[in-house]
Amino acid sequence: MHFYPSNPSSDDKFMARAVELALRGRSRTAPNPSVGAVMVRDGLIVAEGYHRFCGGPHAERECIADAKSRSVDMTKCTMFVTLEPCNHFGKTPPCTEGIIEAGIPHIVVGTRDPNPKAAGGLEYLESKGVKVESGILEEQCKDLISDFLCWQFSDRAYSILKLACTIDGKIAGTTGAQEAVSCPESFTDVQHLRSIVGAVIIGGNTLREDNPTLNCRLDPLPVGFSQPKAVVVTNRLPENFEAYTLTTARAADTIFWTSEEQGATETARALKNKGIKIITLPRNEKRLILESGFKHLRKKYGILRTLCEGGGKLACSLAQQNLVDEFVMYQAPRILGNVRGRANFAGSDRELISDAMNMRVSRVHQSGRDLKIVFKPEGQ
Amino acid sequence: MHFYPSNPSSDDKFMARAVELALRGRSRTAPNPSVGAVMVRDGLIVAEGYHRFCGGPHAERECIADAKSRSVDMTKCTMFVTLEPCNHFGKTPPCTEGIIEAGIPHIVVGTRDPNPKAAGGLEYLESKGVKVESGILEEQCKDLISDFLCWQFSDRAYSILKLACTIDGKIAGTTGAQEAVSCPESFTDVQHLRSIVGAVIIGGNTLREDNPTLNCRLDPLPVGFSQPKAVVVTNRLPENFEAYTLTTARAADTIFWTSEEQGATETARALKNKGIKIITLPRNEKRLILESGFKHLRKKYGILRTLCEGGGKLACSLAQQNLVDEFVMYQAPRILGNVRGRANFAGSDRELISDAMNMRVSRVHQSGRDLKIVFKPEGQ
Repeated sequence: MHFYPSNPSSDDKFMARAVELALRGRSRTAPNPSVGAVMVRDGLIVAEGYHRFCGGPHAERECIADAKSRSVDMTKCTMFVTLEPCNHFGKTPPCTEGIIEAGIPHIVVGTRDPNPKAAGGLEYLESKGVKVESGILEEQCKDLISDFLCWQFSDRAYSILKLACTIDGKIAGTTGAQEAVSCPESFTDVQHLRSIVGAVIIGGNTLREDNPTLNCRLDPLPVGFSQPKAVVVTNRLPENFEAYTLTTARAADTIFWTSEEQGATETARALKNKGIKIITLPRNEKRLILESGFKHLRKKYGILRTLCEGGGKLACSLAQQNLVDEFVMYQAPRILGNVRGRANFAGSDRELISDAMNMRVSRVHQSGRDLKIVFKPEGQ
Repeated sequence: MHFYPSNPSSDDKFMARAVELALRGRSRTAPNPSVGAVMVRDGLIVAEGYHRFCGGPHAERECIADAKSRSVDMTKCTMFVTLEPCNHFGKTPPCTEGIIEAGIPHIVVGTRDPNPKAAGGLEYLESKGVKVESGILEEQCKDLISDFLCWQFSDRAYSILKLACTIDGKIAGTTGAQEAVSCPESFTDVQHLRSIVGAVIIGGNTLREDNPTLNCRLDPLPVGFSQPKAVVVTNRLPENFEAYTLTTARAADTIFWTSEEQGATETARALKNKGIKIITLPRNEKRLILESGFKHLRKKYGILRTLCEGGGKLACSLAQQNLVDEFVMYQAPRILGNVRGRANFAGSDRELISDAMNMRVSRVHQSGRDLKIVFKPEGQ
């Protein structure tokens, strides 16, 4: 397959590479923002860097170190960095000083730093004679720090929704039997997603039909990795809980989000006796109101990101409750053609396309035979 | 939005540009193949060309002329061309001679010429000391001439399927009311598709619900353009034919594909009296067998390409009958979330994802807010 974006400029392409680098650091930078940087000379990328882990060097410092190791003459270069360089002493000295010391004459920034403590970098650089530009590929660079903004300005976990579906939007066949929809590359990519979150969330139907483990199956697992918690959202707690891996082998990691009525049942007591957590959520007609669950995960466990893996009703509930900060869709080039197949989004009573929930495409990646399309909420 | 393909090489990027150019010529090159070419010097594209119309200069000649007009030193260049240069006198002299005269030392070809009359270009060039390579971005370059292969090796029209749908695969809301799903840029792009086909095909439900015109609405229309015929596929001819634009204002351009029983009805006679054509097709249980319709369009009217614009049942029938040579999907980043919305593919009784119809992604374009994804049948 080949991709035809609408006329990206060279600057866009350099910044796109910086975004790609930033994404690599995503697993270990939290609660810092993910940042990437490239050094460009005469139209070619000559050095790269990204923020690798919280407490480690910032992307600009990594990029400068890479340039030094390659004997790049930085006085002839432009640095592209996804986020405005910091201007304050945090865990590391300010990047603005590093840039001035390196003699880089020109800095291009994707987006300004929304953190007032760290901002002002561009003005400082300009006062020292560095040529500065900002707003290149700004939307993508903002998308890169939308988790960071969630952590700064809200008290809940950042919510990623992931679904693998066919061209006709089916996540499973008519029986709901567990089958691979996407290709092996996408399966591996999902394991990477699981590795950057503190909890994986599913609906009750997915528990009953798939009996999943929800473990990250990367091999090897990242050093010091602990498996994400498993959250099951359901209006009906499972009575036959001996049947499920989550409620037996992973009991200590498993949390049910359910209604107050269900939380008072004998089943709830029995689950609690197994070490399983039961969190009750308020209800609006037939739907659980989910936001307090995301707040609880953050407050109680310090969980910064969650990954919802469906099914369609839960996905739709999250979207309707503005609890999809990022939607990662693996679209397999396959057609079921049967409207009774399980839908990627279900349970809304919207009748008209004009009432549809709008998102926007942030990034499109090739993932083996599939497309990996990353959507963001419209207007963000 | 930004696109992240899997590691394209520089050669891939040059060839991708040649493919893009070739697509521009698509409206007027038939029954010739669409071909594009770029001239590259020191890693930059310095001249471009594509086959603009049947009988006009081939892409290589256009590219050489463009290079001359820019005073490019062609002896320092590599030419990338999507299809092997022709080696025979057709409407124009052989491109191989043009390449040798121009002194181009290096030719990179996407795919070999499947036409035995025109083939042998690479061997001839090599015998004259030109460095030749082939197979760069081969799949896309083959996709570019799949219409040409259909014309050469079959007796039917080449079939393009187009659908505009939401992330959850809906082409309309629950009532089927006509609403815009995709963005204005995609709407315009569909008009370009209508401009390269000889017939637009719809199902009976689309006729009844949308009362469409199926005209190409480009403004201005291409010089000498005549509007595509309208084909309505239905098991039930419309009795209230005064109600539809196609059966009144566009009667002379309108063709119904229907069953033999329906073709013998009073309604069929009345439609014929209006100048509307009724073509009867064989039936397999409840589905019309459509291939003979595509053969009839080619044989009777010389129609080389058709565009099916849905609905979901017709789309699914075409796919099941291997009559989708190319599927263009405009995917709007919107979610209806209601399984009762009209599906992009419907009517199959497949139960399992493992029985799904497989396609492959050929190209992905940005189309305003939407993605335009071009699929091809798997294994082609």
